Order: sequence, then structure tokens, then C-alpha cells
Amino acid sequence: MRDVAIIGVGQTAVEEHWGRSLRHLAHDAIMPALADAGIETADALYVGNMLSGELSGQEHLGALVADFVGLRGIEALKVEAACGSGAAALRVGLMAVASGIHDVVLVCGVEKMTDAISHEITSGLATAADQEYEVSQGVSFVGLNALLMRRYMYEYGVKHEQFAGFALNAHRNGANNPNAMFRSPISQATYLRAGMIADPINLMDSSPVCDGAACVVLAAADRHRAKAKAHILASAVATDSLAIHDRRDPLALDAVALSTQKALAQARLTTADIQVFEAHDAFSIMAALSLEAAGFAPRGAGVCLAVDDEIGIHGRMPISTMGGLKARGHPVGATGVYQIVELVQQLTGQAGANQVPGAHIGMAQNIGGSGATVLTHILAAA
Amino acid sequence: MRDVAIIGVGQTAVEEHWGRSLRHLAHDAIMPALADAGIETADALYVGNMLSGELSGQEHLGALVADFVGLRGIEALKVEAACGSGAAALRVGLMAVASGIHDVVLVCGVEKMTDAISHEITSGLATAADQEYEVSQGVSFVGLNALLMRRYMYEYGVKHEQFAGFALNAHRNGANNPNAMFRSPISQATYLRAGMIADPINLMDSSPVCDGAACVVLAAADRHRAKAKAHILASAVATDSLAIHDRRDPLALDAVALSTQKALAQARLTTADIQVFEAHDAFSIMAALSLEAAGFAPRGAGVCLAVDDEIGIHGRMPISTMGGLKARGHPVGATGVYQIVELVQQLTGQAGANQVPGAHIGMAQNIGGSGATVLTHILAAA
Repeated sequence: MRDVAIIGVGQTAVEEHWGRSLRHLAHDAIMPALADAGIETADALYVGNMLSGELSGQEHLGALVADFVGLRGIEALKVEAACGSGAAALRVGLMAVASGIHDVVLVCGVEKMTDAISHEITSGLATAADQEYEVSQGVSFVGLNALLMRRYMYEYGVKHEQFAGFALNAHRNGANNPNAMFRSPISQATYLRAGMIADPINLMDSSPVCDGAACVVLAAADRHRAKAKAHILASAVATDSLAIHDRRDPLALDAVALSTQKALAQARLTTADIQVFEAHDAFSIMAALSLEAAGFAPRGAGVCLAVDDEIGIHGRMPISTMGGLKARGHPVGATGVYQIVELVQQLTGQAGANQVPGAHIGMAQNIGGSGATVLTHILAAA
Repeated sequence: MRDVAIIGVGQTAVEEHWGRSLRHLAHDAIMPALADAGIETADALYVGNMLSGELSGQEHLGALVADFVGLRGIEALKVEAACGSGAAALRVGLMAVASGIHDVVLVCGVEKMTDAISHEITSGLATAADQEYEVSQGVSFVGLNALLMRRYMYEYGVKHEQFAGFALNAHRNGANNPNAMFRSPISQATYLRAGMIADPINLMDSSPVCDGAACVVLAAADRHRAKAKAHILASAVATDSLAIHDRRDPLALDAVALSTQKALAQARLTTADIQVFEAHDAFSIMAALSLEAAGFAPRGAGVCLAVDDEIGIHGRMPISTMGGLKARGHPVGATGVYQIVELVQQLTGQAGANQVPGAHIGMAQNIGGSGATVLTHILAAA
């Protein structure tokens, strides 16, 4: 199995891209990534995307994007794992290079969510959950997460305002990221008065609907060592039931635990070695639960990490360092690749005002559904 | 790069499975495949599917199916390349094993098309084509293929009835396949009087809307040699523009040519070595064009192969040996895996009345869109 390096990254700003369709967004991330890598072509393209069929009437993004960026002919496939689709495409790209089948591949996460009407977006996101046993009962995806948050507050005696720190941290970091959707810090008061979406999840507990694309160029490390920006030390996937009610314990994200443990074992590291963690903070409850399951906090104590000393840039375990899903934005199928691009920024000292000092080992975790598919990647500075 | 063997296969009958949803269909293919391989678990599952989001409101099939078949926890992802999704999942499964990341993986193609209303199915299938430059003009997927067929007839002075042999061969073979959707031979007269769908494509030129699932178990050949039913000698993917009008020549399927050449080169074979070819006969025009581009006939002469001496079980190059997409049926995202299951039947002498005598090298070609993604696999008997 060959070692795999990241030799180029690219991203679009996350926003409402009314003038750009899926192919344009992918192009706007892929071309800078190719330029960053100093190459003009690649052996293959793996596209991470969740909702192109539902919201744009367009499947078959692999060939579509390959052609549009001038690479007609190359291998190109789409990979999907709900909101974990971006990291799922990375996983496949890594296998393509690790196997020796390809030397240089593109991994592009792209999502176009805003060019649809509201109930289509809600229905689209609900395809991440169990249609027959959850969605058919009338619950939305944010509704399912609200049930988890309510249960968490009940079980551990937590108040809603205790989650505020996740949003404050994300928005503070997003303010310094030119590619973030939200670039204004928010106050505790803003958090508290935010409109309710699905009680107890309010607007500041939830990542936004948005458009964006991000791309990384993977290459065989032995053949492209001089260009390496970072090395992929570990890649692990674990799954759980889609339906939350069918799990061993709804507040224990078993797939997060398993995926993290597998990744740490591959990299021969412990959580203490991780210097920056791009967590899947699609909802503040998901940040708390995944920090617990990943081993950064005991059960019920994830929410206690929502303070600057813990998750801030200079905290014990910085998360959402470029704004996270909350403030950078969560173009669902693209998010997993944004996380990797941002880790590379951190590991190469390119994170600007959000630079985690001396970061050379980072972890990214991309979650499909409410913890049903969990992809964990650990990167090291080159 | 490790050699990869197929150690188990499973399939459901292709039909209108009103009582079975996506997860049930996948289960009904995976459980027999596991039993066939003599194992109870696998390291990972790669699901090929195109339309679960559009027609069943369900993305995230990887984790959903893994859980439902009792394998909660394992890596599970969905791969999509329109009608080529089945072989795309096989491609990813092969990379997972070839890389050394996994030893034993499941590849399951599954599609549930019939539990939707007609215009949803038509819209769903059109997501394989270019939404912005083709579908927005009002053309359906079958309409695009009709344009190709009309052009072919015009360019080469071919009459519609000359295509009949593809349907006759498929139905003759389907009659002997207990898993085929259509199990009655048809006559030339039936072909000629079939209702028109999109002129000149009539009902007998077109594969049906249907449900089904197929599964293969892949394993590292060096560790599971005793169980090997077939070896994967080659796996190649090539792409072209989705939009037919944007191609070099609409009647030249460049991605078929490139994908076939790459696969033959990997296997160190020529077309003369292929003893059975599971072609992508979604429409009779696609059979003719792909036979030409793959090198089995000169330009304009693919339709001349539509006779028993050529493509019949005892012909020069048997195709659609278990009924093909036309008669076995074309549950789109499952088709590529059905083709592999059927090749394994041929290479292990299990094809019953449709057995190609002495077959030990076979090729399967799965096409996404009207030739935009082409996946070619070559198998050898173990």
C-alpha cells in the first residue's frame, strides 16, 4: 500500500452562488487545486456530492465535471455518503492512489443547495435519514438532531445556552476566513435570541444551506515527495444504523468512536497527539456528541468544551478553525473536502489569523446522517 | 497491487418488486452472495445505485444496507455513475482490495424504479444526461438515444428492422434465465409491431424499467485462492462529455473505445480472446455502437452483428447471454453487477441452457449515460 500525499488544494467561497451551477463550482475549486499542485491533468477524478439529483436534476457528476474542467476521457466517479460524501470521495481517491492504480487524482466535493425551494431542500437533506422508519413519520433532518439535543439536555441536565460556545467559536474563526459564508463574530446575546428552527435547535445551533466546492490533489508520496503539502496518515470509515431509534444508545455515536479509534490506530497516535480537529459541527449537538465519542471528553461533558480555552485557536483542542460547518458553511457533499483543505492550510502555516501555532498533526471528521457514516482522516505536515 | 478474485455471487430476480424496498432487494442479493462465498461478514460494502434519492427519497444507502444485512459498523459507501453505477461500485471495491486496505468486500448494485410514477422515472433517468444543455431542451433519455439511432440509420443507410436481432437474441437468452424479467422469446414480427417509444426506438429496442439487486464478493486472490470463482484481469474507466452534441462524433463512442483498449491492454489480450461479452444493450442502438467502438465491428457495421451466428450463444461473440439489459432487465444502478454475476456464471459453467461452451475469458461493459462513463471489466475463470 503506497503512502498518499496531498500536493494541491483549491476552494470556492461558500455562499449563495446564484450565477454558478454545479459544474462551475467544481471548476472553480479544481482549477486552483491543479495550479497549486503545478500540474495540468490528473489520472482520475472522484466527486463527493449528495444532492445533485434531488436539487439540480443532475446525476453523473463525475463525467460531467471531468469534461468541463478539460479532462474529458479520464476516470471519473461520484461517491455519496450523505453529508459525509466529501470525505467519502477522499477515501476512494486515497484507495486509487494507495493501490497503485493511479498516481495523481483529484478529489472534489461540490454542492449546490440554494437554487431550490425550501421544501425541496428539507426533503433532500432528509434523504440522509431513514426514509421508511424516520422521515415517513414526518420528521426532518434538523428535527432528528433536535430530538438528540433535547435528550442530551434532559439526560445530563444541560441548559441550551451552554451550547453557545460552539457557535461563538465558529463565527469568530469564520470572520477571518475569506471563504467562509458568515464573516461576523456573534455574541452570546445573538445566540440566545436567535430564531428557533426545531426546538431546541435555533439558527445559531445549525449550519446554513449554501453552495460551494473544494478540491484536493492526491499523489503517490514516493513519486511526488517534493510537492507534498501534507501526508494522509490515516483514513477510516465506520457506520451505524441510519435510524437513531435503532441505535444502542442515541447519545453514543458508536460510529464516531469506531472510526476515530481505527484512524488513531492506523496513525499510531492518541487523541493527545491531535493538534487541530476539524469536527463535523453541522449542529451544536453534533459537535458535543462527536467530541465525546471521539474521546476528547467524557460522556455528557462534550458541551463543557464549548469555551475558548478548550476549542479556540489557542485552546487545548482547536476545532472549526476556519469557521467549521456553522460559519464557513455546510455545502453538504463538499464539506468533507473543505475540512481537508483547511487542515492543509493549518499544517502548512497558511491559516492566517486562525493559525494554530505549530500545528503539524490534524484530524478531520466528516459525518453522514446523524452519525450513520463517519469518516476520519489524520494528516501530518509534509 | 494485489490481484482480486470473485469468491461469491448473488442476485434477485429482476421484476417489479412491489413488496420489497431498496434495503430488502440489497439484502436478497447480499445474503446469497455471502453464503456462496462461505462467509458471514466482510470488511466493507460498496453500493452501486443511481436513483434512490430521486425515486425513493433515500440517499445514504451504504450505511443503510450494511446495517440491514447485519453488518452494522463496517465501511460502507455508495458509488454513482448513472447507469454505470454498478460497475463503478465494483471499481471501488476492487481498489479497496487491490490497495491492501481490505481483504474481503461486498459490491452490491441495487435499484428500485417501479415504485414511482412515470414522469418521475423519466426525469430520474434524464439525470444521466446533461441537465443544462440537453434535458432543459425537453429531451428525455430515450429521446437522446432515439436521436442517435436516427442518425445511425441515416449515416449508414440502415433500416430499423435490421436492429431486430439484438432484441431476439436477448429475449431468447432471457427465456432460459430464471432471474430475467422477460422470459419469452420474441419473433421478428413482435419486434416489428412493437409500440413506438421515441421514434425510431420501439418497445423492443429498449430495456425495461424494473427493480433488482446483484452482489459479488471480492477478495484478495492470494489469501482466498481456494474460493476463487473468477479473477478480475482488468478494470478500466473512461469518460466523454455527457452532452451528445458536444462530442467529436455522436456515432463514435470514444469512451467505449478508450475504456476497452485500456482493459485489453491491462489483461494483455485482444478482442479475439474475449469469448463472451456482456454488452450494455440498454437500447439496440447502444448495442450496435458499443460493439463498434469496442472493436468487434467496423464503423457502421455493428448492426450487422445482430444475427445468431454472431451474437448468439454459439455465435462468434456471444452477448447478452443471460438476457442482457433488454430481457434480463435494466435496474439501472444494479446492471453493472448483474453483468459480473452473469460472467461468473459463464466462467464457472453455471449458465445452464445459455452456457457458452468452454468460456474462460469474458468481458463486461457498463455504460453511464449515452456513452459518457464506460466501465470495462475482464474476468478469467479461476
